[in-house]
Amino acid sequence: MFTHLDSSGNVAMVDVSGKPGTMRSARASGHIAMSPATIGLLEENALPKGNVLTAAKLAGIQAAKQASALIPLCHQLNLSWIDLSFDVQSDRILITATVKTKEATGVEMEALTAVSVAALTIYDMCKAVDLSMEIGSIRLDEKRGGKRQETQRYR
Amino acid sequence: MFTHLDSSGNVAMVDVSGKPGTMRSARASGHIAMSPATIGLLEENALPKGNVLTAAKLAGIQAAKQASALIPLCHQLNLSWIDLSFDVQSDRILITATVKTKEATGVEMEALTAVSVAALTIYDMCKAVDLSMEIGSIRLDEKRGGKRQETQRYR
Amino acid sequence: MFTHLDSSGNVAMVDVSGKPGTMRSARASGHIAMSPATIGLLEENALPKGNVLTAAKLAGIQAAKQASALIPLCHQLNLSWIDLSFDVQSDRILITATVKTKEATGVEMEALTAVSVAALTIYDMCKAVDLSMEIGSIRLDEKRGGKRQETQRYR
Amino acid sequence: MFTHLDSSGNVAMVDVSGKPGTMRSARASGHIAMSPATIGLLEENALPKGNVLTAAKLAGIQAAKQASALIPLCHQLNLSWIDLSFDVQSDRILITATVKTKEATGVEMEALTAVSVAALTIYDMCKAVDLSMEIGSIRLDEKRGGKRQETQRYR
Amino acid sequence: MFTHLDSSGNVAMVDVSGKPGTMRSARASGHIAMSPATIGLLEENALPKGNVLTAAKLAGIQAAKQASALIPLCHQLNLSWIDLSFDVQSDRILITATVKTKEATGVEMEALTAVSVAALTIYDMCKAVDLSMEIGSIRLDEKRGGKRQETQRYR
Amino acid sequence: MFTHLDSSGNVAMVDVSGKPGTMRSARASGHIAMSPATIGLLEENALPKGNVLTAAKLAGIQAAKQASALIPLCHQLNLSWIDLSFDVQSDRILITATVKTKEATGVEMEALTAVSVAALTIYDMCKAVDLSMEIGSIRLDEKRGGKRQETQRYR
Repeated sequence: MFTHLDSSGNVAMVDVSGKPGTMRSARASGHIAMSPATIGLLEENALPKGNVLTAAKLAGIQAAKQASALIPLCHQLNLSWIDLSFDVQSDRILITATVKTKEATGVEMEALTAVSVAALTIYDMCKAVDLSMEIGSIRLDEKRGGKRQETQRYR
Repeated sequence: MFTHLDSSGNVAMVDVSGKPGTMRSARASGHIAMSPATIGLLEENALPKGNVLTAAKLAGIQAAKQASALIPLCHQLNLSWIDLSFDVQSDRILITATVKTKEATGVEMEALTAVSVAALTIYDMCKAVDLSMEIGSIRLDEKRGGKRQETQRYR
Repeated sequence: MFTHLDSSGNVAMVDVSGKPGTMRSARASGHIAMSPATIGLLEENALPKGNVLTAAKLAGIQAAKQASALIPLCHQLNLSWIDLSFDVQSDRILITATVKTKEATGVEMEALTAVSVAALTIYDMCKAVDLSMEIGSIRLDEKRGGKRQETQRYR
Repeated sequence: MFTHLDSSGNVAMVDVSGKPGTMRSARASGHIAMSPATIGLLEENALPKGNVLTAAKLAGIQAAKQASALIPLCHQLNLSWIDLSFDVQSDRILITATVKTKEATGVEMEALTAVSVAALTIYDMCKAVDLSMEIGSIRLDEKRGGKRQETQRYR
Repeated sequence: MFTHLDSSGNVAMVDVSGKPGTMRSARASGHIAMSPATIGLLEENALPKGNVLTAAKLAGIQAAKQASALIPLCHQLNLSWIDLSFDVQSDRILITATVKTKEATGVEMEALTAVSVAALTIYDMCKAVDLSMEIGSIRLDEKRGGKRQETQRYR
Repeated sequence: MFTHLDSSGNVAMVDVSGKPGTMRSARASGHIAMSPATIGLLEENALPKGNVLTAAKLAGIQAAKQASALIPLCHQLNLSWIDLSFDVQSDRILITATVKTKEATGVEMEALTAVSVAALTIYDMCKAVDLSMEIGSIRLDEKRGGKRQETQRYR
């Protein structure tokens, strides 16, 4: 039942050698909450140049490529596309990541990793002005593809 | 004010060459929420052997070491200690990470990265049995050290 | 004859662009010898929780994924499965690693790397109590697959 | 007693924040056994140009730098020197690695990792001509430095 | 038109999920200029053993594998072949890299990265004897393959 | 004389264990030449948002941190500051990188690596619109610090 534990309860990787390579995608999201004052500063100084969000997007893309190096039982996958978008609200930034592959396993972890590292990058760039930030709501929204080409909605 | 943006609003790294190496530590925390049924399965099958949490702890330690490779404007630091602990509750696992260094900048991002990747690792190992998981409440608890040897509490 | 040296004796990578992707696997093994007293301590304190061997297994899995980054002329491969098992004997721990891929070259080096890094991880965790440890007998046991779908036994 | 297991038997990193940075070194060795025919081919074709051993030396140096990324509970260290030497005998190549640092923990694992990955690199480059190779005798020879500036001989 | 910028001018990765995996190759070149005296020393001391160029070749191969980790919007690709050759002239070393893949995007960046890092490696090994070195002329020579199996010559 | 070759002409790392940690900096520069039309498109679409140059700057910073992993005989260093600036001219973009450390060896290679990877990142983002680009003039401008606290100008 726990695919990553064997019958003795030991950690184990899933053998995906029998699964075909097919188009697969996953979309994950999350947010970083911050004070409205920080959001104001970001919009005034930084967002016009897109710099904080550009850095977060690039960091999220690079982290998605490294998901299998970060998460021990995660398979190596060459990703066909990684995209992140940001929705700046009054007291938080919503982050959404979409990932695609044509390989033999799903890309949920890659999408979740992209969201997490993008949030950490925003945290890093704003931490000098805001001690109240919090990262949350990191979850899968949707997963598509695999052998039945099904869509799994998570919310 | 935004230390990671220069006067033109461009991304910029902070020059820490003038800061002395001193003992510094940071503690961060977060959680992964899951269904009580998943918690039950974990306790029955896996936690007695510590495997899921051992994998999460090791992944968090390894990610903390890689923080500067994941977060673009984060400085390279050799960490003196990285520790993670887990508190399994009825519907969530609380994750706490403590990081120490003797170098010239704080280790907030290293602690936050450890928590985030530990949570992602638990997510990966439980995702076959639980579609409802969510990672949240990732924040700094405390930061110590630096030139004034002060303690900054965040909550 | 030396596939990794060209006709002038210079190091060279093998061109595998003409080889088809097929199911391939390799199994390698090795051991880490230690004093019976260390084995006793491990069984008493650590093995009940599986922690030393869990750490070694996870490190071996992660290293197998990185084989082409460690070994200069080794090709990049996305691995379908990596498994390690341990046999604790009176004065040594035997380590076996099995690796599978569906790509165009064999996975011998990935299996050997997994065994090597798992052994190094055990060494690291026991070095405070045992100065006599030695890693040895690292070799291939079997290789399967490739264009002729043959099995090559090494011992 | 096991410094990498806490009082509950869980994996744990050692806190070295209280240890001073001092000159430390370690020397490790090991061998790769191969058929005399392979040794002959190596000496005839490759060793005059130093290519196989140059590749092995470079791979060992690069792996030593990555030891803390490969071995989960190993500390990050900036190494001051990494050297490998090779002694080609009739049926094996002996490999010795010496590593130095000025940081707060010993470099045993870095030296052992250098030997291991140098051996794996030789294996990779010779595996097309020799199915009988075996890597062994990987052990520490000597460790120097630390707070008491002592020399610990291992054999 | 800029494939790596979206309609708002933001950085964006290209979605290659609709592109088939086909044989693709790219050849890039560049040079490192140095004083004739340095070339003389290299030929006298080092080139007979091939060591500087062997190190540069291995570094170029390893860097090509890491191109997607270095260049943010570059796709992950498993490379089938990476080759570098060197032409030592009176006041410069010409470097040529050829890369092949069977995956869904071109390998221009991998070939250019191989040339760049090979040049940097030569720079590093000669910098103690020559303050005048300069790396230049790094460009694509030819690109083959893709959906139309065309050859694009760049010079 | 060649510090990276031993007395037999073999590659060798320099032992810096006897050198003190002191403030050191290096500045390197280079350019990427492109057609005036590409420069025009960049200024019209992308530069107002700073995206291409932001990506190049972040890639250069991240690559500087990885210099010792890319260049085999380069020492590991924790960098105190990495900065890149860009001067967009009619037919080329000039790139300058400045790097600082407080460790025991110079940071020339880190600065040169930052320039090289920033140029490769610009190449990647513009390659769909310009087949004529060329990276060149990569060289050291100045190096400061070390045991004599001297400044070495290279041009």
